[in-house]
Amino acid sequence: MTTLDDLPLRDDLRGRSPYGAPQLDVPVRLNVNENSHPVPAEVVSALEHELSAVLHDLNRYPDREFDRLRSALAHYLDGVLERQGGPAAGTAAPERTDSVRSATENTGTGRIDPAQIWAANGSNEVLAHILQAFGGPGRTALGFTPSYSMHPLITASTGAVWIAVDREADFGISVESAVAAVREHRPDVVFLCTPNNPTGNGLDLAVVEAVLAASTGIVIVDEAYAEFARPGFRTALTLLPDHPRLIVSRTMSKAFAFAGVRLGYAVAHPAVIDALRLVRLPYHLSALTQAAACAALAHAPALLATVDALVEQRERMAAALLDAGFTVVPSDSNFLLFGGIAEPHALWQDLLDAGVLVRDTGIPGHLRVNAGTAEETDAFIDAVHRVLESTPEHLAAPTQIPAGPPVGAAPRTAKDQDPA
Amino acid sequence: MTTLDDLPLRDDLRGRSPYGAPQLDVPVRLNVNENSHPVPAEVVSALEHELSAVLHDLNRYPDREFDRLRSALAHYLDGVLERQGGPAAGTAAPERTDSVRSATENTGTGRIDPAQIWAANGSNEVLAHILQAFGGPGRTALGFTPSYSMHPLITASTGAVWIAVDREADFGISVESAVAAVREHRPDVVFLCTPNNPTGNGLDLAVVEAVLAASTGIVIVDEAYAEFARPGFRTALTLLPDHPRLIVSRTMSKAFAFAGVRLGYAVAHPAVIDALRLVRLPYHLSALTQAAACAALAHAPALLATVDALVEQRERMAAALLDAGFTVVPSDSNFLLFGGIAEPHALWQDLLDAGVLVRDTGIPGHLRVNAGTAEETDAFIDAVHRVLESTPEHLAAPTQIPAGPPVGAAPRTAKDQDPA
Repeated sequence: MTTLDDLPLRDDLRGRSPYGAPQLDVPVRLNVNENSHPVPAEVVSALEHELSAVLHDLNRYPDREFDRLRSALAHYLDGVLERQGGPAAGTAAPERTDSVRSATENTGTGRIDPAQIWAANGSNEVLAHILQAFGGPGRTALGFTPSYSMHPLITASTGAVWIAVDREADFGISVESAVAAVREHRPDVVFLCTPNNPTGNGLDLAVVEAVLAASTGIVIVDEAYAEFARPGFRTALTLLPDHPRLIVSRTMSKAFAFAGVRLGYAVAHPAVIDALRLVRLPYHLSALTQAAACAALAHAPALLATVDALVEQRERMAAALLDAGFTVVPSDSNFLLFGGIAEPHALWQDLLDAGVLVRDTGIPGHLRVNAGTAEETDAFIDAVHRVLESTPEHLAAPTQIPAGPPVGAAPRTAKDQDPA
Repeated sequence: MTTLDDLPLRDDLRGRSPYGAPQLDVPVRLNVNENSHPVPAEVVSALEHELSAVLHDLNRYPDREFDRLRSALAHYLDGVLERQGGPAAGTAAPERTDSVRSATENTGTGRIDPAQIWAANGSNEVLAHILQAFGGPGRTALGFTPSYSMHPLITASTGAVWIAVDREADFGISVESAVAAVREHRPDVVFLCTPNNPTGNGLDLAVVEAVLAASTGIVIVDEAYAEFARPGFRTALTLLPDHPRLIVSRTMSKAFAFAGVRLGYAVAHPAVIDALRLVRLPYHLSALTQAAACAALAHAPALLATVDALVEQRERMAAALLDAGFTVVPSDSNFLLFGGIAEPHALWQDLLDAGVLVRDTGIPGHLRVNAGTAEETDAFIDAVHRVLESTPEHLAAPTQIPAGPPVGAAPRTAKDQDPA
């Protein structure tokens, strides 16, 4: 019988396993950072309406440039920037900002121009497009680990070499270490994930600015979870006017509760968008995807209404985990990394047996759990209590905690607590 | 102002332009081989029903393994094979066929097992997955040109090297020249496009079998247009039981009139599908795409009802073009390549000015036009007549015809006319 080993597979793929968050049938699934809130009736109606409008013409290829979706995303981001008080004051040479500003002037409204927008089937595909344009054979991409597991896989898929630099003990990144890593490795692409998956914490924008200043390559700021950040978080969108090598990547899978539609997007200088046009497959965004995303963006407040509820549940989970004796990384996302676990996989299995699926991301002493509905929080907290009652050894003695996570509720530095 | 040249773009992308069939606002668009027939009301209703059923749960990631869609595609292909009289008798060693046969036995029905099915956002993405798994740096892919323009682009995007081998003067491929090319270049991947885009003609399965026998790599048979083939065309699906290195790629964009949904698929040995799982981005097929494709496949006869009508219009166009003095490549697809043109781009522009958009694929002396509705055929034929009336010089004198296409209605060899 023919197996994978009998086929002329690329050498670097031999022995590898496909990405595999288990798709298990469990009552409470808190393992893939989905938004547990179903799409509200108001948005379902809007989706039905927008989708019906395109069904008759599905014989035609979709708009290759997804112009309407671009405008809708730009409009949404204008609102994000407005709530942040507008772009940071620029320090770069005038010619760098002129192109973006004049593009903005063309629309007559807002701060983000549709020409600055890219979108694809999930932010994974957005990142793949970026690496296909700016990575590839003979190039390197650097990330600060632990971080999103797809960053190295997407890098390697283009033939580029992945460089992993360790985060600090509290899973943060200091300006000094970031600059040192960039100066040492001179990467063609830098990934900065903020809020970071799977640790949950956001990054001070000073780190992004320092990396932009120290590098000559593309800097990707992956903000998939930005809508869940604590007050004071500043999006890297504010840095775009002065930084043509900056790409901010976002998604509708998390805060928008729209994972099933697969819509990731990125914002950058229009010249960067031109580069992505060179590598995307033609007509990569279906007419259904474009229509559904437009409908959702037109009802953004209804979809984003779940964000506050999820943040509340995240904090309830954090309090319960701390109370039970675990450590918790302060989170700017819709999930928590908790530590002080003797054997993460054993606890993962016991929680699964108790009906709750969480994620073992491979960080020693830690597991990840995402916030869900109030009922899911109840079920999670209850499962934790039951499991600890029968197996208190799941809690590592303080001296056994591996890999130096933050201990208990010990606050991070003021700067980390409230990223300026 | 920052331009593409100021960015750290991959060297091999410098100076390139994005794929760009013009998206022009023209009354009659016959340039991208779309199916001109809108989705019938019966299928629109089914789509509304299937899509509505998933909208509420779009907060969840889609089924990463698209099991229901896999089964629906396998069922459709079983019908295709039944109409062809089943798989060809195998000649390979028993162990090669056993795995497919036992997989088939598992389902208890049909000839194609869901485990043999892959799908992605358009057959371009299917081909990209194949090249990511079996191409890549240090590898080569060979195609017989002129053929589909994305084959070399997708090959290069993985870092593999593209090898172009000329087709015969009549745009066919002989067994002898195919085997000689494969033996000379020893490619890791061979593309065989049948019916071939942009020339329209299908390939004798003997060529596919000879290439499989001569090569040690993956053989991709791109059958995007197979449903439009003339009687006697045999799909390479019939060869699958004996050939674990064969991949047959198809699409719902053409015969199914479903280009807006972006659903391409491939059929191969289950081990090949395992390889594609290694390179696809997780959750690459949205819940909307999966639901829409399942609805369409459940109503395949209604969608495929346009195939006969399009073939009829293709033959009307062919007759009119021959009558007007052009040459025509006999077509197994929903489009025609016609030749004997003095200056293709000048004729393309004149037809555009007359309200009909066709395609200049860069083949000297030729243009491509796809079949549409009867009204579109009328408009095309009328435009051809009007343009020739005012500019008869568009017709090349017989001796000026470049690149040796088939002259007039001269039949191909019997074997080519009716590919066994």
